Amino acid sequence: MNAMTDEAAAGTVAALDEAWFAARATPGVRGLKAYDPGHDLVAFRRRFAGRAGDAALVELGSNENPYGPSDAARAAILDNLHAIHRYPDPLGGDLKRALSAKHGVASERILLGNGSHELLMQLGQVFAGPGLDVAAPEVVFARHAFAVFALATQAAGARMRVAEPLPRDATMPLGHDLDALLAAITTDTRLLYVANPNNPTGTWFGADALAAFIARVPREVIVVVDEAYAEMADAPDYASALGLLDAYPNVVVTRTFSKAYGLAGLRTGYLIGAPGLVAVMERLRESFNVNGLALAACEAALRDEAHLRSACARNAGQRTALSESLRARGLEVFPSQTNFVLVGFGRDAAPIERALTERGVILRPMGGYGLPDCLRISVGNPDENRRLLAALDECL
Amino acid sequence: MNAMTDEAAAGTVAALDEAWFAARATPGVRGLKAYDPGHDLVAFRRRFAGRAGDAALVELGSNENPYGPSDAARAAILDNLHAIHRYPDPLGGDLKRALSAKHGVASERILLGNGSHELLMQLGQVFAGPGLDVAAPEVVFARHAFAVFALATQAAGARMRVAEPLPRDATMPLGHDLDALLAAITTDTRLLYVANPNNPTGTWFGADALAAFIARVPREVIVVVDEAYAEMADAPDYASALGLLDAYPNVVVTRTFSKAYGLAGLRTGYLIGAPGLVAVMERLRESFNVNGLALAACEAALRDEAHLRSACARNAGQRTALSESLRARGLEVFPSQTNFVLVGFGRDAAPIERALTERGVILRPMGGYGLPDCLRISVGNPDENRRLLAALDECL
Repeated sequence: MNAMTDEAAAGTVAALDEAWFAARATPGVRGLKAYDPGHDLVAFRRRFAGRAGDAALVELGSNENPYGPSDAARAAILDNLHAIHRYPDPLGGDLKRALSAKHGVASERILLGNGSHELLMQLGQVFAGPGLDVAAPEVVFARHAFAVFALATQAAGARMRVAEPLPRDATMPLGHDLDALLAAITTDTRLLYVANPNNPTGTWFGADALAAFIARVPREVIVVVDEAYAEMADAPDYASALGLLDAYPNVVVTRTFSKAYGLAGLRTGYLIGAPGLVAVMERLRESFNVNGLALAACEAALRDEAHLRSACARNAGQRTALSESLRARGLEVFPSQTNFVLVGFGRDAAPIERALTERGVILRPMGGYGLPDCLRISVGNPDENRRLLAALDECL
Repeated sequence: MNAMTDEAAAGTVAALDEAWFAARATPGVRGLKAYDPGHDLVAFRRRFAGRAGDAALVELGSNENPYGPSDAARAAILDNLHAIHRYPDPLGGDLKRALSAKHGVASERILLGNGSHELLMQLGQVFAGPGLDVAAPEVVFARHAFAVFALATQAAGARMRVAEPLPRDATMPLGHDLDALLAAITTDTRLLYVANPNNPTGTWFGADALAAFIARVPREVIVVVDEAYAEMADAPDYASALGLLDAYPNVVVTRTFSKAYGLAGLRTGYLIGAPGLVAVMERLRESFNVNGLALAACEAALRDEAHLRSACARNAGQRTALSESLRARGLEVFPSQTNFVLVGFGRDAAPIERALTERGVILRPMGGYGLPDCLRISVGNPDENRRLLAALDECL
């Protein structure tokens, strides 16, 4: 092929803008928008760095664990600092063995991810990407579900089929409508994402409803049950989908170390599913996708069950107390089995969110989730929750 | 859509094996093989854990930096241990500002990756995936190039166009044949990967050859110059492609903290390219793809230029000494601008590699790269290189 001359090339330089590159990208990427991180948290932390006590920054926007990880996780990092010039174990063998023992599943059913985010994206890429034997593969999920479900679908270039939620009233506060999810499935559906409990609503469905739902999904549809908040669910009717995997090999469960285990900074999630599904996903996995300090820290965190129980118990207590305090202020507080509560303000919540931000209280706006009258509030420790309520009283 | 009954479902469970899931995966993934990690290094480390001095394990298989990272990198990790329950900065702002200052390019031209491996894969996914306005997008790279180039092409479902290397003789020892790369480009070519210096050959091409090559590539082809080993190149004729980016916005450069910076365990790479290309890639980037400890450690490592210079100088000295020692044993040693040397044994190298492994010396077999008579030997510290040579003398 003849090459372009330097002169011709120089004329095209200015034209190679985002539109030029986007036109050369796959259809999925062409339609994607870059992630909007919202606040520049690092800048906020700097701005508030000198302030102590009641003037310090209160970060309740990202559903992190305010009690932090197990001390054993930090100790494992220190134990491995001498080896950070080495590549991580590409097999993740030790962490997978620990997960295998914890969940009572074979290691070959476990896949590790750079956060469950990576796994959710790759499930879309593998099973709903272009070139399948269906003209337009479809992916089903619910409105007000985790934002990554839509991103994964769009990145794959698949068609979104969004099921409407249950009505927003006292008895059915925006929980997933499982019948609507089933009704959204067509013969072109390849993947269905559902989170239990769900982010950003905090709602969940019980064991019986889950089992009945899974039984009715056609076996040709891969069902991804994202259980990022599972460890913090304590409702008597809640049950993980892990118990259904043997009967339904088209079901996979994703979990994370970012929430209850307090290790969001290290980026580790995992998937449990049929060995065949894991083997296919392993083909695409980057050999060193989970970093070495994370492998060690997560394994240590997994063994410290007392810390996990304690963090979850404290979260549950604070979740109840915070919910009651917010309801006492006349706000709509959705029931939650997570470490956050979705709160309705009965009007556009953006000005309230801005006013709180100015007071150093960071929450998550919900406009992007189609809930502009709501804010999502992570359950903090007692001091953080007190600060939040005080700031809220100033703003309302 | 009617759901399957439980009875029918139970009958299909056994059938949902890897073939079942592979048949439902995209064509690219259908043809992919899972990464073969070769040795289980963790198991080897345990087996040799009790042995000290000359009996300890010598790891020269992964081109890691035997001198480790800057102390400032470890200090940055300790400084950030209190915050590992927080998500990383999704903007990677501090690290990008440091990279911007170092390379003299705007932050908007920098994209961070979970290792450059992730960036190389996503370049293929975005610009050579299915659904483009060409029936079968093609990706060009050279035989005996970095293995991830082929993986990225296959995962995208694109067609590989593999250029043959220069002849293997004393004057042209398997270096890339840039004319052959140009000749492999067709109107269906969307992406071209080339590493300079190259892994696993260690060879490089000079500034003039690079500039002439880039000038002849059609502007419609995105050229990825992987410079994972750039910091260790000291040949007078070597130059990074970074100097060509302003004139050729279809060129991108990938770099890593895994080699000269000694931070392979933390998984951080970056890409420098046109703002438009970075903006399109940002759409697909997972918001927290680089972990928080890595962001801090890499920024600190970047500022410790003395450590980098020292590690590179020591590597260069040992590379020369090791090459001479290997040549003195009658072996074929390819010229290298990296922290490894490719060594030809004149016969199947697999038995030699196995014998070395039994003696606790880990090298990288090259059968998978189509060079079964070769082994790739990372340049270690003086003690490691001495141990390697002693073990080799026992095996040859």
